[in-house]
Amino acid sequence: MSRIVLAYSGGLDTSVLLKKLIAQGHEVVALTANLGESDAVAGDGAAAELEAVRAKALALGALDAVVVDARERFVREYVMPALAANVMYEGMYPLSAALSRPLIAALLVETAHRYGADAVAHGCTGKGNDQVRIELGVRGLDPGIAVRAPLRESPLSRPDAIAYANAHGIPIAHTAAKPYSIDANLWGRSIEAGVLEDPWHGVPEDAYAWTASPAARPAHADEVVLAFDGGALRQAQGDTALRQAQGDTGALRQAQGDTVDTVAMVAWLNAVAGRHGVGRIDLVEDRVIGVKSREVYEAPAATVLIAARKALERLTLTRDELRFKATSDQKYAELSYDGLWLSPLRTALDAFNASFAPRITGEVRVRLHQGSAVVTGVRSPFALYDEALATYGAGDAFDHAAAGGFITCYGLPLDRVARLHAAPALA
Amino acid sequence: MSRIVLAYSGGLDTSVLLKKLIAQGHEVVALTANLGESDAVAGDGAAAELEAVRAKALALGALDAVVVDARERFVREYVMPALAANVMYEGMYPLSAALSRPLIAALLVETAHRYGADAVAHGCTGKGNDQVRIELGVRGLDPGIAVRAPLRESPLSRPDAIAYANAHGIPIAHTAAKPYSIDANLWGRSIEAGVLEDPWHGVPEDAYAWTASPAARPAHADEVVLAFDGGALRQAQGDTALRQAQGDTGALRQAQGDTVDTVAMVAWLNAVAGRHGVGRIDLVEDRVIGVKSREVYEAPAATVLIAARKALERLTLTRDELRFKATSDQKYAELSYDGLWLSPLRTALDAFNASFAPRITGEVRVRLHQGSAVVTGVRSPFALYDEALATYGAGDAFDHAAAGGFITCYGLPLDRVARLHAAPALA
Amino acid sequence: MSRIVLAYSGGLDTSVLLKKLIAQGHEVVALTANLGESDAVAGDGAAAELEAVRAKALALGALDAVVVDARERFVREYVMPALAANVMYEGMYPLSAALSRPLIAALLVETAHRYGADAVAHGCTGKGNDQVRIELGVRGLDPGIAVRAPLRESPLSRPDAIAYANAHGIPIAHTAAKPYSIDANLWGRSIEAGVLEDPWHGVPEDAYAWTASPAARPAHADEVVLAFDGGALRQAQGDTALRQAQGDTGALRQAQGDTVDTVAMVAWLNAVAGRHGVGRIDLVEDRVIGVKSREVYEAPAATVLIAARKALERLTLTRDELRFKATSDQKYAELSYDGLWLSPLRTALDAFNASFAPRITGEVRVRLHQGSAVVTGVRSPFALYDEALATYGAGDAFDHAAAGGFITCYGLPLDRVARLHAAPALA
Amino acid sequence: MSRIVLAYSGGLDTSVLLKKLIAQGHEVVALTANLGESDAVAGDGAAAELEAVRAKALALGALDAVVVDARERFVREYVMPALAANVMYEGMYPLSAALSRPLIAALLVETAHRYGADAVAHGCTGKGNDQVRIELGVRGLDPGIAVRAPLRESPLSRPDAIAYANAHGIPIAHTAAKPYSIDANLWGRSIEAGVLEDPWHGVPEDAYAWTASPAARPAHADEVVLAFDGGALRQAQGDTALRQAQGDTGALRQAQGDTVDTVAMVAWLNAVAGRHGVGRIDLVEDRVIGVKSREVYEAPAATVLIAARKALERLTLTRDELRFKATSDQKYAELSYDGLWLSPLRTALDAFNASFAPRITGEVRVRLHQGSAVVTGVRSPFALYDEALATYGAGDAFDHAAAGGFITCYGLPLDRVARLHAAPALA
Repeated sequence: MSRIVLAYSGGLDTSVLLKKLIAQGHEVVALTANLGESDAVAGDGAAAELEAVRAKALALGALDAVVVDARERFVREYVMPALAANVMYEGMYPLSAALSRPLIAALLVETAHRYGADAVAHGCTGKGNDQVRIELGVRGLDPGIAVRAPLRESPLSRPDAIAYANAHGIPIAHTAAKPYSIDANLWGRSIEAGVLEDPWHGVPEDAYAWTASPAARPAHADEVVLAFDGGALRQAQGDTALRQAQGDTGALRQAQGDTVDTVAMVAWLNAVAGRHGVGRIDLVEDRVIGVKSREVYEAPAATVLIAARKALERLTLTRDELRFKATSDQKYAELSYDGLWLSPLRTALDAFNASFAPRITGEVRVRLHQGSAVVTGVRSPFALYDEALATYGAGDAFDHAAAGGFITCYGLPLDRVARLHAAPALA
Repeated sequence: MSRIVLAYSGGLDTSVLLKKLIAQGHEVVALTANLGESDAVAGDGAAAELEAVRAKALALGALDAVVVDARERFVREYVMPALAANVMYEGMYPLSAALSRPLIAALLVETAHRYGADAVAHGCTGKGNDQVRIELGVRGLDPGIAVRAPLRESPLSRPDAIAYANAHGIPIAHTAAKPYSIDANLWGRSIEAGVLEDPWHGVPEDAYAWTASPAARPAHADEVVLAFDGGALRQAQGDTALRQAQGDTGALRQAQGDTVDTVAMVAWLNAVAGRHGVGRIDLVEDRVIGVKSREVYEAPAATVLIAARKALERLTLTRDELRFKATSDQKYAELSYDGLWLSPLRTALDAFNASFAPRITGEVRVRLHQGSAVVTGVRSPFALYDEALATYGAGDAFDHAAAGGFITCYGLPLDRVARLHAAPALA
Repeated sequence: MSRIVLAYSGGLDTSVLLKKLIAQGHEVVALTANLGESDAVAGDGAAAELEAVRAKALALGALDAVVVDARERFVREYVMPALAANVMYEGMYPLSAALSRPLIAALLVETAHRYGADAVAHGCTGKGNDQVRIELGVRGLDPGIAVRAPLRESPLSRPDAIAYANAHGIPIAHTAAKPYSIDANLWGRSIEAGVLEDPWHGVPEDAYAWTASPAARPAHADEVVLAFDGGALRQAQGDTALRQAQGDTGALRQAQGDTVDTVAMVAWLNAVAGRHGVGRIDLVEDRVIGVKSREVYEAPAATVLIAARKALERLTLTRDELRFKATSDQKYAELSYDGLWLSPLRTALDAFNASFAPRITGEVRVRLHQGSAVVTGVRSPFALYDEALATYGAGDAFDHAAAGGFITCYGLPLDRVARLHAAPALA
Repeated sequence: MSRIVLAYSGGLDTSVLLKKLIAQGHEVVALTANLGESDAVAGDGAAAELEAVRAKALALGALDAVVVDARERFVREYVMPALAANVMYEGMYPLSAALSRPLIAALLVETAHRYGADAVAHGCTGKGNDQVRIELGVRGLDPGIAVRAPLRESPLSRPDAIAYANAHGIPIAHTAAKPYSIDANLWGRSIEAGVLEDPWHGVPEDAYAWTASPAARPAHADEVVLAFDGGALRQAQGDTALRQAQGDTGALRQAQGDTVDTVAMVAWLNAVAGRHGVGRIDLVEDRVIGVKSREVYEAPAATVLIAARKALERLTLTRDELRFKATSDQKYAELSYDGLWLSPLRTALDAFNASFAPRITGEVRVRLHQGSAVVTGVRSPFALYDEALATYGAGDAFDHAAAGGFITCYGLPLDRVARLHAAPALA
């Protein structure tokens, strides 16, 4: 018998798990994290729902039940460093679920320390990425805590789960089978399973919840101006903040304040960009445990912010920085996806990225329309773009004659290669 | 006095150049390459235009004037190898102009050999990329041929060019200054200069010629199914080839034939995707000679084909292949952009990419709508995706228990790091 | 009950394993591969020893026992492709044991097919790399064959093994515990365990068998000239082949023949370089399964050949090739070490490396003395080194003035960075 | 007429240059930096020599002449960050000369600011790397200062230089032509030109000055124990500091003090390791301006320190850190070699490397003997090596059964590949 902290969602699987662990004689503390699953789009109405989850855990016999509002921490400690690496796993996925798992692991460990628990448990099965991310997250923080994955060791079919629930007084909210498996937080929403398991099958509209269908998208475009200051999101000045995004008065007031509430800004971008259908992602990706899976995501804010930041980087970083950063950014995404958030290499890449932060300063105008987020303008006091050098018009400051000497030297290796190939003896 | 082959467009600058070289006592052969500039969208009406260019060169006193239809060679020797590397310079630019320059260099060298010329000349100025690409292209094929860049050594202002033209009987087609500098071939269209030199300034609609404006795009989507066979483009079977792309009967007939004319398919994709506004690209990029410039492109076919090929790669290549290929593809794009097409490293990367070709076989469905080309389905007999392993439903063949052992080993390094940090002596 | 092919060394562990599998009712075919373990240094006297291994297996009840001379195949299919990638895991280890495991796996699969066996077995424990390499080698060739690792599932202590052997009539050659665990083939010899498990403890001389101790090394140096032709080892011409390597008349005659027997050349290099103490390697390395281990190797021929080939590459490959190949060579070593020899990425890297082969032509002189193999000269008809360009003496063909233009352009990004930092508003 | 700071060595070329600049009407300030050229081996006897250089400049008419002892700054700001990146250009060259040039550039700029000069000058010709490094060093610090390279624009032959010197009263120390061109500082000595321009020609013994010839090396080995503390060099404890390095009492007393004088330690290592012939390097390398050259170096301290640091990294960094750092270290070496020391990418890589510093703590024992520096032991409180996991003996803490699950998942992609290849339709 031990004391266990369980990552608890309030759903069927983790409720059965909670009950079973108690039945085995354990003391169980239920932990539920608020990472912005619902208010990503809809506002703070989530509080009541989370309170109900807490009450359910207690009703099922939990020693205690904890709900943590981790939204601000999620954005500050996980999303913003990842944004600095323009994370896009396999070029497509901004790692919304992946970034939340190490935070859940940290909350499990912290709660275990608070309650004197010697183990934590989660409801992941054996074939997903999340078991890896959570277990490595726990072990990387406190390898003395045991991690239990009961549903991996003894998979639980849905009929069995329902039967157990009925037999043990676990209320079941929706008995109708859901067509997809869903996970969501402020940085994005994941949709998998069901018909999506055939990669040739297009994504049905009912898979999407945050992004408007083509038929429902407005005819007009919205433009937002994102301001960065030393790598952080800053509120844009004056009337450039938002041109046409009517009707978001609540979020807008927030967003126009002097200090930026980054959580609110991300939520607001999800709403504004989602209304235009921005941020739908559909790919076959490579899971940590060695299989490919077809995954669908909605990540409006992530899509907009990464596009904007990359445009600013192209303006203010040197060519050699951009080329190397493409490699390091890829590695950052791989580490984050692969459950290695706590790898000291990730920390080292954070230090690398922090070195660019002062120049991640400026404004990026993004046009949202019909499923696309397109950068239409970028400016920065740190722009390496120099119109006097680049112009083809009057005022050209470029030393044209120098280019001849440049090319002469630059091409020397090719001359030599060509001469060798032209030599009869070697042809 | 020498015999020189001049890359001749028929425009003002190269016409003045032609006349000046003759006035200096040189024999000049004018070379004009047809790379699909105009028929990319509009069909083969370009023949008459190119004949007029040829006649103009002869009228100006050229020793001879040559027009080469290099479209098929361009696609086969330059575009397809680049597609195998998913070329996207700085993540954005599919290298349309960049890929054509080494071909122009090859044509210059071949023409020089045919006419016994000891030099070639081009009309590039000193600050662009094309001078580098053409000169290295020539030197890499025959370093014994001199390359002249008269407009780099003695820049020619537009007023001076017009004055010289008027004084020497050079006809000037359009005296009105054009707002942009344009270059185009089958793989894309480049737009630069003028108001575009301010990266904060949005791109005016009049900069675009191949892609429909938001207002002009159809309300309906088109779907095309691209079929790959061993890395080559194959015609898709039956009715999947094209669902809704009405009104392209000419190109369509071509595209549905048994054998694919890749030139026609690229031209057709430019038309079909361009009508939906697909392929607009706007970025600040790093030129070879060390300055940033703001460039705008239209590349509908390139956008669609690269998206499709990457989706197929995600389905059929292993994770370690995808991760390494991201690095090698980046290098391929850098070499191509930087004028190093003839670097033997590029050839080695071609051999690397050719190794994947058998598995680049399958079909990709792409939805064209409102400026976006979105992959909505992918399938292949070489798919590494295995529904029996990936499924969360019945028929699951995955060994869940193995995952526990996997994670135990996989996380060992992090355990050790965590234990060290927890040790009081080292904290 | 099934028919199993067992990788059989003739040692205590695999003999116990053989007997136990038979006792469980299986039919066991013993497979022993000759990869040059002993004749690497000592010549072909290994034949009798291998025959004794075969006889022992039959005496213990094996259905059949097979000895395969795989030396030539090992060098041709595994060592030479790895040499083309200059394999050095973590910069130090030329992968001698690692390269042999996929070959052993191939022999197991081929033998299983020949004997109609449905499983193969090996004697590896659960913490080494070889279990991974063999199992992935088998699965990558025929995933329908089961791989059994009885000593991983039920570890066998040495006392238990001896007790079992005594009880079941298994002859035990040496009852004295050996101080180290040894593995060897033509490409190198591995030494681990015992006092070596403390990385602070220097390697005792008795760990080494192929390389002379400092006290025993000759005072004179030997020089060998290695000739490469299209990436293959070719016999060097005339008297340059070997200057002072007296006393190797047998091997020498072999080595000076018209056609090179690569197996003999590698064995001869092991002898010649080993006599000078060349090829001792001592490092802490990262095993596939997540732990660090201290490993000691002797690899005289590998050390010499890799040093020679790299020198030739520096002479004949372009700078961009060398820089990229450093990355691809590292990946090649990682794949080979990590058991992923059959990854299609490895095949693609082979194609990449094959592209350089024509230029891997020339001669490299290597001086062997006192533990070091130092390249003292390199020449090639494909040398990109051009004395007329490089010289500081008379005959200089370099265009010095061009360098000024080169530097002007080359430094433009730094100018811009510096100007920004100097601007008061941004300082 | 302007005021110019000239990088002045006191040799023939820069003396002629000094005189010519004055003759052209410029005011010239001569700058000479002490980077440890001579005391690297021989102690501080260099002071008198440098004073003579200063006096010579003044005698030739310099407005002023400045000698800066920049040894400590060189080691602190240039050598130690480069050591953190294990710099080895093309795998061989520890960048001794390359690291000094940006410091000379900084001294030129600082002196120009002090004297109100608007230009700096150097005596490099047009084909070396140093012109690039110095000019980019100056422009990267103050692009408003002009950089003059008179010997690039008007190459000066040795006879012409001597004639000019005789005609203008410039004393010439050694009229005998030297066989090589030499450059040296604390981090190494470069030797080029003369017979070395033939890469097939072995390096004559007279090219070396810091490293003992094979005939002169002692029969005994020396062992040194290098201690690192947070990435910095720390003095080793007690008697382990030095076992047998007799006769270095002066440097030794320094080296055993409580605080380490890193300059003295580097100089001492040059002496101790040089006596054993350690640190000879001979390679064909790729210069920035596009040609290959054959270069010879002596770098005893660099060789020892880089080997030691890498051994410590292998012990204390994770596998993913080591793999990625190999890539970033290569980039660091390329930037440093290519004159891009002031690239902000280099600064970002410094931040990346600094992240590892705490774990670069421990001791490394290095054996110096007969031209080799071999690590014979390494230990650290941050070792990730864990004998309990690695051991094959008693006390094994490794979970062997987990390895089976690990391999099952780890090999899944290969299974799938193999199954596809085995399918008749696809074979």
